[in-house]
Amino acid sequence: MKVKNSDGSIQDYRTVWMEGSTIHMVDQKKLPYTFSIYASDSFEKTVRAITVMRVRGAPAIGATAAFAMSQAALLFEGEDMSEFETYMGESAGYLESSRPTAYDLFYAVSQMKEKLGASSDISSARRILASESQRFANESAEMCRLIGVYGEPLISDNSRILTHCNAGALGCVDYGTALAPMRLARDNGKRFSVYVDETRPRFQGAKLTSWELMKEDIPFSVIADNAAGYFMYLGEVDLVIVGADRICANGDVINKVGTYEKAVLAKENDVPFYVAAPRSTFDLSCKSGTDVRIEERNINEVIFADGMGEDGIARRTRIVPEGVSAKYPSFDITPARYVSGIITEAGILAPGDIAYFV
Amino acid sequence: MKVKNSDGSIQDYRTVWMEGSTIHMVDQKKLPYTFSIYASDSFEKTVRAITVMRVRGAPAIGATAAFAMSQAALLFEGEDMSEFETYMGESAGYLESSRPTAYDLFYAVSQMKEKLGASSDISSARRILASESQRFANESAEMCRLIGVYGEPLISDNSRILTHCNAGALGCVDYGTALAPMRLARDNGKRFSVYVDETRPRFQGAKLTSWELMKEDIPFSVIADNAAGYFMYLGEVDLVIVGADRICANGDVINKVGTYEKAVLAKENDVPFYVAAPRSTFDLSCKSGTDVRIEERNINEVIFADGMGEDGIARRTRIVPEGVSAKYPSFDITPARYVSGIITEAGILAPGDIAYFV
Repeated sequence: MKVKNSDGSIQDYRTVWMEGSTIHMVDQKKLPYTFSIYASDSFEKTVRAITVMRVRGAPAIGATAAFAMSQAALLFEGEDMSEFETYMGESAGYLESSRPTAYDLFYAVSQMKEKLGASSDISSARRILASESQRFANESAEMCRLIGVYGEPLISDNSRILTHCNAGALGCVDYGTALAPMRLARDNGKRFSVYVDETRPRFQGAKLTSWELMKEDIPFSVIADNAAGYFMYLGEVDLVIVGADRICANGDVINKVGTYEKAVLAKENDVPFYVAAPRSTFDLSCKSGTDVRIEERNINEVIFADGMGEDGIARRTRIVPEGVSAKYPSFDITPARYVSGIITEAGILAPGDIAYFV
Repeated sequence: MKVKNSDGSIQDYRTVWMEGSTIHMVDQKKLPYTFSIYASDSFEKTVRAITVMRVRGAPAIGATAAFAMSQAALLFEGEDMSEFETYMGESAGYLESSRPTAYDLFYAVSQMKEKLGASSDISSARRILASESQRFANESAEMCRLIGVYGEPLISDNSRILTHCNAGALGCVDYGTALAPMRLARDNGKRFSVYVDETRPRFQGAKLTSWELMKEDIPFSVIADNAAGYFMYLGEVDLVIVGADRICANGDVINKVGTYEKAVLAKENDVPFYVAAPRSTFDLSCKSGTDVRIEERNINEVIFADGMGEDGIARRTRIVPEGVSAKYPSFDITPARYVSGIITEAGILAPGDIAYFV
């Protein structure tokens, strides 16, 4: 993703990358107000960055997890291979506990563990994980680029597209999932506009997708999540594209809470509803959505709204009165029957064909 | 509505009332953080209070408008009946411009204008409007009480009810529309719980409905609007009750934006979806929802979130980056086919039977 530096020069960033034993990531807790890079020089800091959502979005979490495995190996203090293996196993478990729903996390960890199995000593393990984690991130970016290629034809001149949450470059290593087709359509000279669900409670649409689309010069309007149905009812939405945190063997899609609502409304209004996701998001061990653990996050994210004060200082404002309880499922389940197609790096699949692809 | 004073005594308030030429209203811009009464001693202040939503909710706006017509008459400076009539006509027009969607506003103004027609001089006009506006407010409260009586049997022991926005006592003169059946069910010893949609962008659910239900000791949880569908999908919602801002001759319902989404999701999940509204909300001159002007409010309500800082001071926090555009339809249209029934002061009607009732 291209970002203008303070001296006016343009620099190309990935959302997450690793140099030496340090993992760098665009700090998404500070966007859209400040663009800054968070540098994690310890495995524990990296795990925490995932949990508190400095880095978020399923493919971005996956790449961060792959790097974290490499980081753990590099920072291991000791020389005993058996101790190293125990340590890496425990580290993998701790990393997997950072967030429960996005499959890319577990996919990345299992991929790195598999590579680790081939190494007979610590230094070869370090070399293998360093190169494999870089390859994982590069392939993740390439998969998103291809999602753009396969999804682009869905967008016509004058299309009005609805998206939910952030499934852009920020949620991936680069390009994005749901936003990748839009980037390419823009490059191809198509004119279209986007309705961006603000995506309560964390406002990933209002904060992150709007930040990305503004930089990309793609016209859009932020709307309250409540208004998406109304615009569909008015016939002002031609296409919905969202990302995914996990896709089950039967094609059920787990994604940011509210996705199910938009999918039902799209079907009711005959609006095509597409999910964009690479293979790292497909979890065939889950037969259907009910097998997936839906993360319940801290209800303070519902009780408060985080933004920026008029004085330019980050502000947390209390919405819900003190003493009131809230419930906060962070994801939901969209049954496959609401999904028109899944845009992957290998083409657009019918939800029921997932199992044959992976 | 019963509110505890600072000395611990309990006082019974209506949302809006008039004494002399002053209109008093619970200041809903300050809730849930501060309970205070806004006293409007001029017609223009009253109109502004409606526009900026110090008073909101269709029946509460209606009663305020009835009082405002009386206030205009009382504050008229002059002795010429013809000037008075012109002034009252202009005042009525200005009052009607305060907000476009809630029908109760127009209903109240037309009722007061009709009464005004019977008076031959200014002092009799003042007397008539003073008594008729009080009668209007009293009848409005009584209609809501009856909505409670007719709606209460819909609630069973252990019901889990979803509501959207605020259709409680605060949105009416007293009792509420959607919340009236819940109050009575609680009085009757039924145990049930409520999911409260926070209702972006103005958070009327998170702020006002939660404040009311807390005072009423009715168990509830505030949820992001995005989560309502998920709870329906899980089978954890037995019943939806919402209010209305206008109901058309064919039974189409205009209500706070997001209502349409919940109605579609309720139908998809076989959850009964009821609308609670008195006759003052029924507008037979609108054949269907597309005849109604849907208010577009200032997009700053989407761009910012208003709440309370940790220091107890009201805080506005910017969510959407500067330079980003937003769209903000404040209401939406729920076609009659999604509505299980309309709870009125005369019983529960099928949406298609509205025309025979008024």
